[in-house]
Amino acid sequence: MSTKLTEIVDYFKDLQNDICKSLEVLDGKKNFREDLWDRPEGGGGRSRIIENGDVFEKGGVNFSHVHGKLPEVLKSAERNAEHFDATGVSIVIHPNNPFVPIIHMNVRYFQMDNGEYWFGGGIDLSPAYVIEEDAQFFHERLKAACDKNDESFYPKFKKWCDEYFYIKHRNEMRGVGGIFFDHLKSANSERGRSEYGRSEYGRSEHNPWKFVQSVAESFVPIYAELVNRNKDKSFTETNRDWQLYRRGRYVEFNLVYDRGTHFGLKTNGRIESILMSLPPQANWVYDHKPEQGSAEEKTVELLQGRDWV
Amino acid sequence: MSTKLTEIVDYFKDLQNDICKSLEVLDGKKNFREDLWDRPEGGGGRSRIIENGDVFEKGGVNFSHVHGKLPEVLKSAERNAEHFDATGVSIVIHPNNPFVPIIHMNVRYFQMDNGEYWFGGGIDLSPAYVIEEDAQFFHERLKAACDKNDESFYPKFKKWCDEYFYIKHRNEMRGVGGIFFDHLKSANSERGRSEYGRSEYGRSEHNPWKFVQSVAESFVPIYAELVNRNKDKSFTETNRDWQLYRRGRYVEFNLVYDRGTHFGLKTNGRIESILMSLPPQANWVYDHKPEQGSAEEKTVELLQGRDWV
Repeated sequence: MSTKLTEIVDYFKDLQNDICKSLEVLDGKKNFREDLWDRPEGGGGRSRIIENGDVFEKGGVNFSHVHGKLPEVLKSAERNAEHFDATGVSIVIHPNNPFVPIIHMNVRYFQMDNGEYWFGGGIDLSPAYVIEEDAQFFHERLKAACDKNDESFYPKFKKWCDEYFYIKHRNEMRGVGGIFFDHLKSANSERGRSEYGRSEYGRSEHNPWKFVQSVAESFVPIYAELVNRNKDKSFTETNRDWQLYRRGRYVEFNLVYDRGTHFGLKTNGRIESILMSLPPQANWVYDHKPEQGSAEEKTVELLQGRDWV
Repeated sequence: MSTKLTEIVDYFKDLQNDICKSLEVLDGKKNFREDLWDRPEGGGGRSRIIENGDVFEKGGVNFSHVHGKLPEVLKSAERNAEHFDATGVSIVIHPNNPFVPIIHMNVRYFQMDNGEYWFGGGIDLSPAYVIEEDAQFFHERLKAACDKNDESFYPKFKKWCDEYFYIKHRNEMRGVGGIFFDHLKSANSERGRSEYGRSEYGRSEHNPWKFVQSVAESFVPIYAELVNRNKDKSFTETNRDWQLYRRGRYVEFNLVYDRGTHFGLKTNGRIESILMSLPPQANWVYDHKPEQGSAEEKTVELLQGRDWV
């Protein structure tokens, strides 16, 4: 492995350790259990799951580093690459309390043996009840993490996130968004050409690796604050039912639209690690309509998307 | 409408009425409620839903007849058609008792203004616990419905069903199969050419419309028998948990693979009618493995597929 790759892999492993420890402290009852897995074609991962905690009903914090022959779809004569490495950390947390939001983070790095590389990732929030101060706090902190690297990032990556986590068949967002970025590389990288027509997003005058670290390190302080604000709130059966119903939307998004999930399912990835994102329980009620003037109705309105900062 | 189309539409409406009535009798507590809906581009439907019954936790029996300009994907110079009609009945029933299987039926008819037409449909069973006598009974009755029309049907359509309802990322079938057929037309129809390379399946010396009626009319007697055999069986928390877990597989299949669902989501269909197929509740447990020698383990074995007749 190159020095850069080693540094990134080690960082992601430490990140997984740190985040699991912090979430265990927040939960106060359960610890993560670990599954190590190998990818037959090269590499593997370290899946960590927490279930039936005091705060977290189900959560996964997964590290992986896979490598091997470049998939055909990424090959091209011009590119002249044969081998790839992909490494990252993926997190999805489903809390017990309907007022604590579901959170998702992904940070990832991809490189090929021709010298090309890029970063991707993001953090987004899916509350069953959108609490406006919480959504605002969340976006402010993400903006701060972006701004200290590149002031052009937050508006671009906020928009990208809104577009990505959109449930088209429901005409609503999965949650209140956050930031999402992909194919991010240095403006002065040797092969600056961005893939998939994303060049308007995927360049920075600054160091993308430092940016990814800023995002990753914002996860614990942001989520700890949102958990602590809401975890002891009392809730009714109506609140719980609504949470289970909204989790249905999370399932719909992940199984119908999520590119990472589909890529994993189609490339024979480790199913239990991919689908750890699914909630412990989700409900579907035919043609459910929130009551007029209710907090549930307000949430649906806010899931149309807006500026939070 | 042509006489044929009128006859089919009327038959499907009567079928929906008859099936709903029979299911209400079986349930003994709840009745179906009805939603009428219009398709802006032409036609509409009659969705009927039962929820929180004594026997049925959630079930949908939907009729629709939509028509209008032929979608671009179905157009071709050779075909020279502009207008289509599509009509059918779709059923998914999620029972309370873990020993009563989920059942799904679809019967449908498609025609274009160039004279081309075909039938499609099928019935399949997804038990949380595979009871071998029940699966055998189910397949025997389907075979009988097939045989009285065309003895080549059952083996072909049983195989097609096994292939269609396969959850690739889990390496298992959604249930114990049944029959599935599409683009079925008379061998002597004017335009015998079958679409989508299915010509080996989609032809009959006999009358496909009579066959579809045989399938449709086998639904109530088959399901009534399976419900009555199992609805009063006592069950444990483990049985219920397993049912909720298996329903997760049903969700995975429908959202990841089901062509009808994807077609509906992509063509701006009526979402609540399409997604009535989703269970009232589904659970996901990380890396759940049935106990050695348990009924749950036996079920997973039987979901590898086999001949039942």
